[in-house]
Amino acid sequence: MYRTHTCGELSLQHVNQTVTLAGWVQKSRDKGFMNWVDLRDRYGITQLVFDESRTDAQVFALAKTLGREFVIQATGTVIEREAKNPNMPTGDIELLVTELRILNASITPPFTIEDETDGGEDIRMKFRYLDIRRNPVKNSLLFRHKVTMEVRNYLSAKGFCEVETPYLIKSTPEGARDFVVPSRMNPGQFYALPQSPQTFKQLLMVGGMDKYFQIVKCFRDEDLRADRQPEFTQIDCEMAFVEQEDILNVFEGLTRHLLKEIKGIDVAEFPRMTYDYAMKTYGNDKPDIRFGMKFGELNAVAQHKEFGVFNSAELVVGIAAPNCGELSRKEIDALIEWVKRPQIGASGMVYVKCNADGTFKSSVDKFYDQADLQQWAVATGAQAGDMIFILSGKADKTRSQLSALRMELATRLGLRKPDEFAPLWVVDFPLLELDEETGRYHAMHHPFTSPKPEDIALLATEPGKVRANAYDMVLNGNEIGGGSIRIHDKATQALMFKYLGFTEEEAYNQFGFLMDAFQYGAPPHGGLAFGLDRLVAILGGQETIRDFIAFPKNNAGRDVMIDAPAVIDEKQLKELAIEVKV
Amino acid sequence: MYRTHTCGELSLQHVNQTVTLAGWVQKSRDKGFMNWVDLRDRYGITQLVFDESRTDAQVFALAKTLGREFVIQATGTVIEREAKNPNMPTGDIELLVTELRILNASITPPFTIEDETDGGEDIRMKFRYLDIRRNPVKNSLLFRHKVTMEVRNYLSAKGFCEVETPYLIKSTPEGARDFVVPSRMNPGQFYALPQSPQTFKQLLMVGGMDKYFQIVKCFRDEDLRADRQPEFTQIDCEMAFVEQEDILNVFEGLTRHLLKEIKGIDVAEFPRMTYDYAMKTYGNDKPDIRFGMKFGELNAVAQHKEFGVFNSAELVVGIAAPNCGELSRKEIDALIEWVKRPQIGASGMVYVKCNADGTFKSSVDKFYDQADLQQWAVATGAQAGDMIFILSGKADKTRSQLSALRMELATRLGLRKPDEFAPLWVVDFPLLELDEETGRYHAMHHPFTSPKPEDIALLATEPGKVRANAYDMVLNGNEIGGGSIRIHDKATQALMFKYLGFTEEEAYNQFGFLMDAFQYGAPPHGGLAFGLDRLVAILGGQETIRDFIAFPKNNAGRDVMIDAPAVIDEKQLKELAIEVKV
Repeated sequence: MYRTHTCGELSLQHVNQTVTLAGWVQKSRDKGFMNWVDLRDRYGITQLVFDESRTDAQVFALAKTLGREFVIQATGTVIEREAKNPNMPTGDIELLVTELRILNASITPPFTIEDETDGGEDIRMKFRYLDIRRNPVKNSLLFRHKVTMEVRNYLSAKGFCEVETPYLIKSTPEGARDFVVPSRMNPGQFYALPQSPQTFKQLLMVGGMDKYFQIVKCFRDEDLRADRQPEFTQIDCEMAFVEQEDILNVFEGLTRHLLKEIKGIDVAEFPRMTYDYAMKTYGNDKPDIRFGMKFGELNAVAQHKEFGVFNSAELVVGIAAPNCGELSRKEIDALIEWVKRPQIGASGMVYVKCNADGTFKSSVDKFYDQADLQQWAVATGAQAGDMIFILSGKADKTRSQLSALRMELATRLGLRKPDEFAPLWVVDFPLLELDEETGRYHAMHHPFTSPKPEDIALLATEPGKVRANAYDMVLNGNEIGGGSIRIHDKATQALMFKYLGFTEEEAYNQFGFLMDAFQYGAPPHGGLAFGLDRLVAILGGQETIRDFIAFPKNNAGRDVMIDAPAVIDEKQLKELAIEVKV
Repeated sequence: MYRTHTCGELSLQHVNQTVTLAGWVQKSRDKGFMNWVDLRDRYGITQLVFDESRTDAQVFALAKTLGREFVIQATGTVIEREAKNPNMPTGDIELLVTELRILNASITPPFTIEDETDGGEDIRMKFRYLDIRRNPVKNSLLFRHKVTMEVRNYLSAKGFCEVETPYLIKSTPEGARDFVVPSRMNPGQFYALPQSPQTFKQLLMVGGMDKYFQIVKCFRDEDLRADRQPEFTQIDCEMAFVEQEDILNVFEGLTRHLLKEIKGIDVAEFPRMTYDYAMKTYGNDKPDIRFGMKFGELNAVAQHKEFGVFNSAELVVGIAAPNCGELSRKEIDALIEWVKRPQIGASGMVYVKCNADGTFKSSVDKFYDQADLQQWAVATGAQAGDMIFILSGKADKTRSQLSALRMELATRLGLRKPDEFAPLWVVDFPLLELDEETGRYHAMHHPFTSPKPEDIALLATEPGKVRANAYDMVLNGNEIGGGSIRIHDKATQALMFKYLGFTEEEAYNQFGFLMDAFQYGAPPHGGLAFGLDRLVAILGGQETIRDFIAFPKNNAGRDVMIDAPAVIDEKQLKELAIEVKV
């Protein structure tokens, strides 16, 4: 036993007790005849005191040698502090040390172990084990544990069984790139790491497992955008004998439970909106509905005047930015430049200032009169004091641009409050999406998603219009979960592969085991997967997921701490029957 | 909603209620004017009844078309059965069906979906989704879930935090073979899949995480012996500021909790024995102590007579097989043949029959008198009616042979009772073991294990005699967990690598990140890992782990259901900068 208590638990009730603590030296203050050390462990900080007049001389001398991050063990008497620190849970007491032992010394750490550190991202990643000592990272990991425990206990109590599916599976050309694993025992052959346990969870439903979940690592070998990881964690769920409504209810229940237990927040029934509505109203299939600024379509009231830019546009659409009527010309110009950046790609932006007196001032006053602008204000829901921003062009692109502006404005206006939670369901996703480059249709969710029965006939004629029994759970502008009702009969699954451009042979080679399984009494089933990293970050009120992952990789897919990936031995390559050809 | 109830919950209290069930047709009995169907789901079986005189003609006709494993939905009225079945939880009632819907047909399954199936291992693995419908497999998976929930809740309540460590890490030449993953973004470089999260959990301790656990997949590319899997699951644990005693107490507590909660069994404090004692007394470092048959060493009482075989042996050692005194000559000869099989490798066996009248009859009566044999009986603890079996030769080999015989006899005598649980700790493992082939020492546990401080001086002189702070938890003859106190200072770790034959450069290239970490205030720490697959199987009273894994691989490392591993596209290989050279 290295300690009798932790550094977070001593209080006035322990005064006069002899205790032993162990931990790290957070800081040391030497006042000559007095020496104070803040001792830190996972649970808190306790002040140690060494007093020349009361402390053994050897112990007193040793205390003066302690540097930052030394690991020590200290025994002493708990005493009441003269100068109490109300900001510290242990601030009423200190430990008058009688015995001191250095368990391990430390060289000077490369950055300060403080909530606000002087270390940049790169150095913190290289010394991640030191970064984890900092409260923001440590607490994020503890928070993640709390969330996963809540998830497991909730689902388990609802009759879900966690089943581990394999990590060494088979590569499929569909979807993102697989990570592959050469097989030594089967030379020339490869396993793949799962992008998700999709087919296995469906086979568990065929196997009668009924309610399955798993918190599981998944892998995608994609070029990494910011805040994407090659390995990520899913809360993966599947149920048999259910319709979409049943699934939405169960996982809305789970999410509501998490918000209640973790955040102490009661949320009402989740709003539901169709994919079409979300795209038209927010320009986005994962709208942040913590604030308004809904899209107002202006074609009817802005076209057929003298303004050629609008007249030639497929879509004219605006939003009312609340209380932005007083933006200066310079600020407005900066916003126009912002939407014209290549990442956004607008060619220009029209604005209308809604004056307090009910009049309007716009950048297109040459073409539109006050009555016209009044109609725009109605369509966008603008109030006196607001500013209307209007974009135009091809419908899809313009919506996406305006959505980016909407989010940017909301951020600047402080409308994206991290302590506010606005979940919703987006339903009726399209089954297929057209790849503009290849002209081929891809499964929007995945090839196992069931088309809506009433839309199946459209597959042959207007595949882009077929809706799927697919749904996303959205929280504060993030897709935190998504799923679908699956196909559960061989004929429909074969049809689906056909429309996705698979030959019969390709379909059978890749997914024959699943289609075979559907012949032996597959029940209707469906499910959903949450992205745990993102979910935990949002519940924690953060935008980035990295602090919620103990050992994340950088944007080049590298673990800079252990320096992986790395070259391997020739002997290993030979055993695996592969050669490197760079 | 496909159902109002499950097939396992209806009883007399539901009589006259209209309910809807959904599930699989277990069997169908057609008696002409009556038709009974056993409907099965995860929760049980309910009998459906179709009666020509009471059932709608169309429904009645449809019921006659139902085959085994059809998925159906049936609505009807719960009625009391005339002929109750006390062996079925729902045996008091049946469902008089009014509406019937076939949700999915089934072709004839390749084996019967019964507790005792006609399907062999191979076919059951290929159609694993059908195998999972069988109670023995389904219940094993549910049981596994229950165990993992208990483990997580117990450890979480004790302050342990589950942290996910990465799966894409770095290959190390130490230990078993790694599975590797070529990196597309870093051509010519490879990740490795973890054999265990060993270094990461140690870094979490350096990071102040204090109490860590994780239920995690691990990977070893070894030639598969029976009942080994290339991917397996560990309950991985680590604690900081602990000594061996603390760790033994915590995980003995966990195991006792599991035995209590899962099996309803109270076990006393776990016995502890040293590795040396276990090897001398049971010939084995994972002794099954549900029964006796301890080794009796006979050198002192059997050598220096006329029997050359014993005189020339390093060790003469015997066990008393209880109540085997009446074995026939033929049975004894068969046992002698058994120990002479190449897998065991004994060259012969001496036996002594302990007669009821206190006399002895042995196969070496020519060399030994009754007084000699009496001494053997004392040394082996033999009672009247027992049979003493004696092997001799090189000490290690002979112990191992006698251990195999001891287990075989115990199995034959029914002493290995699956419902009896005898856990123990084996402690003081050797730090190093000599590889006879290369003459090099290997770490017996792993290179991060701490030598006992009092034995460190022996490293330079008699490395084989250095004991480690390493321990195994053994249950019913299986090692279910093992761990150690770790090295936590750079100098000792460097010394250890040196004795393991690493050059300084090799050590730093492979484990520099860990040795660097030890310079920044690494706390004393240690831990343990349980093999979950084995633990669950033993708690479930089974010998093989396969039924406790949803989708196991066969002895060639193949998943015969999905047919993996498999060849991959040339395009994939090219992107990964590798070529296959078979």
